[in-house]
Amino acid sequence: MRIQLDRDRFVETMKEQAKIGGTENGGLHRLALSDEDKKVRDWFYEQMEAAGLEIVVDEFGNMFGRREGTMSNTDPVLVGSHLDSQPYGGIYDGPLGVISALELVRTLNDEGIETEHPIEIVNWTNEEGSRYQPAMQGSGVWTGAHDIEEEYVKTDEDGLNLEAELERIGYKGEQSAKPRTDYETYLELHIEQGPYLALEGKDVGIVTGIVGFTWGAVTYYGEADHSGPTPMHFRSDALVAAADVITQIRRIPSTLGNQTVGTTGYIDAKPNSINTIPGEVTFSWGFRDPDDEIIEEAFARVLDEAEAAAEREGVDWEWEERMRASSVDFADRCIDAVEAAADDLGYDGMRIFSGAGHDATHMTEVCDTGMVFAVSEDGKSHNENEYTSWDDCYASANTIANAALDIAEPKP
Amino acid sequence: MRIQLDRDRFVETMKEQAKIGGTENGGLHRLALSDEDKKVRDWFYEQMEAAGLEIVVDEFGNMFGRREGTMSNTDPVLVGSHLDSQPYGGIYDGPLGVISALELVRTLNDEGIETEHPIEIVNWTNEEGSRYQPAMQGSGVWTGAHDIEEEYVKTDEDGLNLEAELERIGYKGEQSAKPRTDYETYLELHIEQGPYLALEGKDVGIVTGIVGFTWGAVTYYGEADHSGPTPMHFRSDALVAAADVITQIRRIPSTLGNQTVGTTGYIDAKPNSINTIPGEVTFSWGFRDPDDEIIEEAFARVLDEAEAAAEREGVDWEWEERMRASSVDFADRCIDAVEAAADDLGYDGMRIFSGAGHDATHMTEVCDTGMVFAVSEDGKSHNENEYTSWDDCYASANTIANAALDIAEPKP
Repeated sequence: MRIQLDRDRFVETMKEQAKIGGTENGGLHRLALSDEDKKVRDWFYEQMEAAGLEIVVDEFGNMFGRREGTMSNTDPVLVGSHLDSQPYGGIYDGPLGVISALELVRTLNDEGIETEHPIEIVNWTNEEGSRYQPAMQGSGVWTGAHDIEEEYVKTDEDGLNLEAELERIGYKGEQSAKPRTDYETYLELHIEQGPYLALEGKDVGIVTGIVGFTWGAVTYYGEADHSGPTPMHFRSDALVAAADVITQIRRIPSTLGNQTVGTTGYIDAKPNSINTIPGEVTFSWGFRDPDDEIIEEAFARVLDEAEAAAEREGVDWEWEERMRASSVDFADRCIDAVEAAADDLGYDGMRIFSGAGHDATHMTEVCDTGMVFAVSEDGKSHNENEYTSWDDCYASANTIANAALDIAEPKP
Repeated sequence: MRIQLDRDRFVETMKEQAKIGGTENGGLHRLALSDEDKKVRDWFYEQMEAAGLEIVVDEFGNMFGRREGTMSNTDPVLVGSHLDSQPYGGIYDGPLGVISALELVRTLNDEGIETEHPIEIVNWTNEEGSRYQPAMQGSGVWTGAHDIEEEYVKTDEDGLNLEAELERIGYKGEQSAKPRTDYETYLELHIEQGPYLALEGKDVGIVTGIVGFTWGAVTYYGEADHSGPTPMHFRSDALVAAADVITQIRRIPSTLGNQTVGTTGYIDAKPNSINTIPGEVTFSWGFRDPDDEIIEEAFARVLDEAEAAAEREGVDWEWEERMRASSVDFADRCIDAVEAAADDLGYDGMRIFSGAGHDATHMTEVCDTGMVFAVSEDGKSHNENEYTSWDDCYASANTIANAALDIAEPKP
């Protein structure tokens, strides 16, 4: 059985959600647990009610809507993503995955299709991790990767407590934040956030797994002296040492693999005065690759480079690996279901590894998991210029809907 | 004629001033126009009154104390420095120059010595330039390098207006902030802030001039993309380009001269998130050398490097030279007077070029100028670990006192 989502309604629903926290430049500013997040949650709650779903909000704010199956004691097929955004991010990102899940149940309702397995749709709390760290927080708590009490006490830049903010917006639910049942599968649609599908002229991405990564930071301690009368050979310049390593972080991936990436996203220099040699500098590293051994090698190399730079510049140093994640392989049955759905719908699909983490990362601990990628024009994301054509949005939404329907076993 | 300052009184007076805004770690936190600056000014005013000086505070807060000479229509010898400090700076820096000037007039009084030329001592407003920019602000206004109305409207980090702060602490005087007469010479004692005198085991520095410098900043504009799914060859990383140039700023001086120094003191990256490729980075350059041609060459080279890095990383860029100062040569008669005084007192002196700017820089536009340097242990300054032994403080104070007395022509 094949379904076709209502393209006009789907596009209208995407536009509707994009208005909540929408920016002047056509982007989205809808930080987790903000007023805008409350508004989009209220709106999404209404949509789920209107679609006749049984709604559960758990104690971490994750929102579930359940459409019953015909067989008792079957495990639900879970489909969804997240409605929160980066600061001045794009309107597609996670919302595309949540809206396509909503459109799936609407379409099943319209066409009177029953499935053996229940279908649940989900909006995870705080996937972005920009206001509260870490990213993928709601799914991480729900799957047991994080302890809820440790996450409740997190604070944002203004010192606002996460649990209090959940209560303030009315989304600290009664239900325990853990799976109430076993799950058959989890499927998630997200934009690619990279350029590969567009470069290859593909319609849709069949995601086979998610890269592993290492994140960490190095701090150098040099001598904060006057930048004038201190001769060059008397200096221990923490910023020069940092710059030395940052240029190596640009180079290291080219020595490891053609999918390896390396980035310094963060730097902080003290006292940060034009007239003083920097005495203390902290900067981050981040490396990703589908191969965990390459991650381990990148980690070793960045520490080697950091040590060499410290010796060259005569500075003390320390480092901290802040996060390490193994790469994740999705379940063959999910990959196959997505590929079959794309083929069946006549879309030109391509198998692809995800370069970014998603809620699906955590879900692999709970059940068989798969993902669909929508084309990202120019690979842009996490900014207001993020763009996916409505054709590409629709193709990916139709693909995940049919893959989910296939797994949920429609009754003829 | 030779005088000897009262060592005990001199050291006690140095310690007394160091208590006003003194820090737990033995440093000094006495920012320009702060409450602490008001307190040290009040204290200094009392000391000048007690020494019988005719006191003038000008409309920019510069404080002068005049001891009359015996000849009418002779130009005064001006001696002094500044009492303000860096944030958590040291207790010697400029205060040593002001206190030694005070001790000079006290000693002349004690010994009943008259001079043909009047002697004026001075405390310049805001030499440090940390709360309000630029540095050497009071002497710059007084000598006509800066327009007073432009400086009055400067604000600090908290938005506090300079003129209002001058009024608040009671040091916006009546006198016009410009020379009331011609001046015979200006002499200033300051700590070296570099390691050379200590390295050579010298007692005192005979300063022959001040290095020139170029200060500026480069901004790179790249693409702020997700650090995961963006392949390395799709990136335009503003921080990598900046790091590339910062390592070159470390190297450039070694290709130009053995007194050349180059520094990046300031860097700001946006959005500065571990998970996003930096889209915009601004960083500073600073080069100093006694030779203006070398400064010009360093300026040209840093722009060449910045352009090359921009091309390599595929980022847009712009630059701004924020300040350029020519090197300054002091007057032979002042250099000779300082050298003769050191010799006569039995101190082992060394001719040295100043690697930092001082109020003396501006004073060269007004009259013949010279400086004395005190030994800086390890060359440390602009932090609480700044240290000059009382022996070295005293040697330099005695040197400038005798040089000034020589120029002021004592009556036998």
